[in-house]
Amino acid sequence: MKKIDLNSDMGESFGTYTIGMDSEVIRYVTSANIACGFHAGDPHVMDATIKLAKGRGVGVGAHPGYPDLIGFGRRNMDCAPNEIRDYLIYQIGAMQAFCRVHDVKLQHVKPHGSLYNMSVGNEAMSRTIAEAIASVDPTLLYVTLAGSHSPLMTRIARDTGIRVAFEAFPDRAYTAEGVLASRRLPGAVIKDPKVATERALRMAKERKVIATDGTILEMEIHTLCVHGDNPAAVELVKQIRTSLERERLDVVPMGTFI
Amino acid sequence: MKKIDLNSDMGESFGTYTIGMDSEVIRYVTSANIACGFHAGDPHVMDATIKLAKGRGVGVGAHPGYPDLIGFGRRNMDCAPNEIRDYLIYQIGAMQAFCRVHDVKLQHVKPHGSLYNMSVGNEAMSRTIAEAIASVDPTLLYVTLAGSHSPLMTRIARDTGIRVAFEAFPDRAYTAEGVLASRRLPGAVIKDPKVATERALRMAKERKVIATDGTILEMEIHTLCVHGDNPAAVELVKQIRTSLERERLDVVPMGTFI
Amino acid sequence: MKKIDLNSDMGESFGTYTIGMDSEVIRYVTSANIACGFHAGDPHVMDATIKLAKGRGVGVGAHPGYPDLIGFGRRNMDCAPNEIRDYLIYQIGAMQAFCRVHDVKLQHVKPHGSLYNMSVGNEAMSRTIAEAIASVDPTLLYVTLAGSHSPLMTRIARDTGIRVAFEAFPDRAYTAEGVLASRRLPGAVIKDPKVATERALRMAKERKVIATDGTILEMEIHTLCVHGDNPAAVELVKQIRTSLERERLDVVPMGTFI
Amino acid sequence: MKKIDLNSDMGESFGTYTIGMDSEVIRYVTSANIACGFHAGDPHVMDATIKLAKGRGVGVGAHPGYPDLIGFGRRNMDCAPNEIRDYLIYQIGAMQAFCRVHDVKLQHVKPHGSLYNMSVGNEAMSRTIAEAIASVDPTLLYVTLAGSHSPLMTRIARDTGIRVAFEAFPDRAYTAEGVLASRRLPGAVIKDPKVATERALRMAKERKVIATDGTILEMEIHTLCVHGDNPAAVELVKQIRTSLERERLDVVPMGTFI
Repeated sequence: MKKIDLNSDMGESFGTYTIGMDSEVIRYVTSANIACGFHAGDPHVMDATIKLAKGRGVGVGAHPGYPDLIGFGRRNMDCAPNEIRDYLIYQIGAMQAFCRVHDVKLQHVKPHGSLYNMSVGNEAMSRTIAEAIASVDPTLLYVTLAGSHSPLMTRIARDTGIRVAFEAFPDRAYTAEGVLASRRLPGAVIKDPKVATERALRMAKERKVIATDGTILEMEIHTLCVHGDNPAAVELVKQIRTSLERERLDVVPMGTFI
Repeated sequence: MKKIDLNSDMGESFGTYTIGMDSEVIRYVTSANIACGFHAGDPHVMDATIKLAKGRGVGVGAHPGYPDLIGFGRRNMDCAPNEIRDYLIYQIGAMQAFCRVHDVKLQHVKPHGSLYNMSVGNEAMSRTIAEAIASVDPTLLYVTLAGSHSPLMTRIARDTGIRVAFEAFPDRAYTAEGVLASRRLPGAVIKDPKVATERALRMAKERKVIATDGTILEMEIHTLCVHGDNPAAVELVKQIRTSLERERLDVVPMGTFI
Repeated sequence: MKKIDLNSDMGESFGTYTIGMDSEVIRYVTSANIACGFHAGDPHVMDATIKLAKGRGVGVGAHPGYPDLIGFGRRNMDCAPNEIRDYLIYQIGAMQAFCRVHDVKLQHVKPHGSLYNMSVGNEAMSRTIAEAIASVDPTLLYVTLAGSHSPLMTRIARDTGIRVAFEAFPDRAYTAEGVLASRRLPGAVIKDPKVATERALRMAKERKVIATDGTILEMEIHTLCVHGDNPAAVELVKQIRTSLERERLDVVPMGTFI
Repeated sequence: MKKIDLNSDMGESFGTYTIGMDSEVIRYVTSANIACGFHAGDPHVMDATIKLAKGRGVGVGAHPGYPDLIGFGRRNMDCAPNEIRDYLIYQIGAMQAFCRVHDVKLQHVKPHGSLYNMSVGNEAMSRTIAEAIASVDPTLLYVTLAGSHSPLMTRIARDTGIRVAFEAFPDRAYTAEGVLASRRLPGAVIKDPKVATERALRMAKERKVIATDGTILEMEIHTLCVHGDNPAAVELVKQIRTSLERERLDVVPMGTFI
């Protein structure tokens, strides 16, 4: 049976502020990317979200971001490599402590927002991230974009001794070059749940993505990124999960098969 | 040979802001309480301070505080027990990650400022702190005030399985009840280096403190708290260290003998 | 016609985080207490909320709080008088700038959360707040609790030259001493909208509150505090507003009649 | 008599952290750019620095920056125009409130760090800044870089109704194109106080700068930017001030002659 993971950003609430339908989406995913208090999340939310994930057998990941709460980590910040390194170590460590408290092993690290986007295709930055993760715990998985970014990451993984998990986005259009189409372009975000589910199935079963011009892209794919922001998003995740299992895919945490 | 530790707050710089003569005082102490980014310190400073401590064989401790950078953690914040717990776990975890990066074992946790002061004599709060530390790593030492606070802490240590390190202050006056004299009272801070050094010696050799009214207080003392804020403070630490060694005390990190 | 104001906390969203049904509740209130970026709110939210209030002819107020975003300003912080003063001046000034941009006159200042609660019955703190407000603009109204706190505030108003607006809470129980019943007691928050509306009417028409033991408390009342946190709360505000107008009360911004 | 202003960044301390020799440098400058609490400074420091400036008859300016305390506002943040606008309005307003408290008129606004650097030669950003300043108070001066950036700024000033103050840097090398040489290049910062003083004199008397290749650049110059970070910097400011006055230049706040 072919294996696939479903990952979702979670634990993005902060203090009195609530974002995301975590207790709903946790029922359908197999890995949770949990915010670490810099761009979102706080110590209490981290604790509660790990507990939630553990209760469902969902793999726990750190989702570190830039120190920009007001911008939700979505704005590029011109940080030096050693600043990025130190921010990652700090946030991963904070998450690991809550993992120990709940007797859970941290499974993966997925950079958030602008930190994620800026690293795609950027060798220096991807290497900095890989080295930071490896310096804390070389058994942690580094989740990044599948597609044309893969060869670079495979090289970095070999150099740093870290394992990489490649993710694809069922609800995002891809260019023929194997990268995500810019969100500014019409059709960049796929809103039809039926289409998104079909794309998820093709990604999981055939490790293939159809680009906007019809090109068939083959990719190494371990995990699909889904969202739990609103009822429609959660419904889509449920549908994707159900379809994957109907097609006899083994939907399990990435840490069990990478 | 009787053993004693000298601990100092360090790593309190933040971004462009520098506080403390860390590279000087590190030469004379045996344990460093390193700020964790809430009331002071930042990821870069944490990394650099651990490196500094490791290079001198100084024991590394986490120095967590309230989330109050502008108040330097010195103002009481009316936090609920679970808030204190989560803030501690988060900060200890962040520090542990940098320790792993430098292949150092975190030795102790000493709450900072108002978090420290409010916990003295407060059973609920001391228990919350002890449990938080134990939940992350029960081998960590919990540094707190020696004196009348000791019996309570000894009980909590037994209940939670944590070990406690008792500290005394050579440059602070004590009341006959075995607590620090309020800073608002004249003479609360001992400014004469000769007197402070004599008190340090008595604390280390005889585990005794002379109170303001002449009462001789016996205490379990493992470590003396010293300061590196300014040249005079560093000079005092140097003098205390020299005197302790001249009197054949074994000045070593607390983790080696508690 | 007797005049009464209805005030509500607004502009508490932050970055990507949304709290409160501001665009709904704005239709029924006459004064808005807008968060200033310390405990909640951000520059963008301040700008948008003033625009919203102006469009409805609602009086604009600053709602300054402690610098504690993670605690939403609800935790007491042991700040010195000059710290409170400076935090108030800063936050009021920031709000005034957005008022100038929208050609609106800032009407009032209402401290938020723990800053509000701690000031009730506390002469030194109330005086600090009054002086801070007066130092920025002595024509600003200082909104505080009606009842047993009034005589103290009247004295401070006379001394500092500031005008005070007294507020009452239709959905809160009062003790016979004329203070709010502690939220920890059962019945402290009145959940029956019919009862809350009746209390609002009595407060507005007769300037009277019935205490938990039946005592009838007479108070100087200028404004009633209502909430817009959820659909039920907004429905209650609508009902209160409708009832007040049906009873021929003149529901207008406090700045027009104090 | 030709007029010239000397401006310096001040009020950059934060909480317990001190930066800059403000009480020294204030004796030699005529305008102070005071940090507003986002990248540096805090409400207490703002209050104290305005008081200091007022006591010396020094013009008070707001020195707003990105919301990045840990990076001291020196890292570029990819903010949208409306985010920059709102951050400026907020910070200027906070500063104005302290000005009112001290009965001082805010004289100018000078963006800090990366916000300043990114705006040079960037029409959209410079226009956003000019409009934000004008929306709060169109009589405020907007301080920006003299040289090749001037024509753009003159146009924006005409469009927005704001007045611009052009500044030059005695201790920085200029390219033949009339911009500052990159700090990464050797010689970008002029360390010889004699040379820096000569350049200051030429800037003030002739409104001329000699570029690295010997080209003589003519510029409209109203103010020279000097520094108070350390004793040598303060000594240089003193020397520049003395030399300017010896050469019979009228060293006065920019607000008195622009």
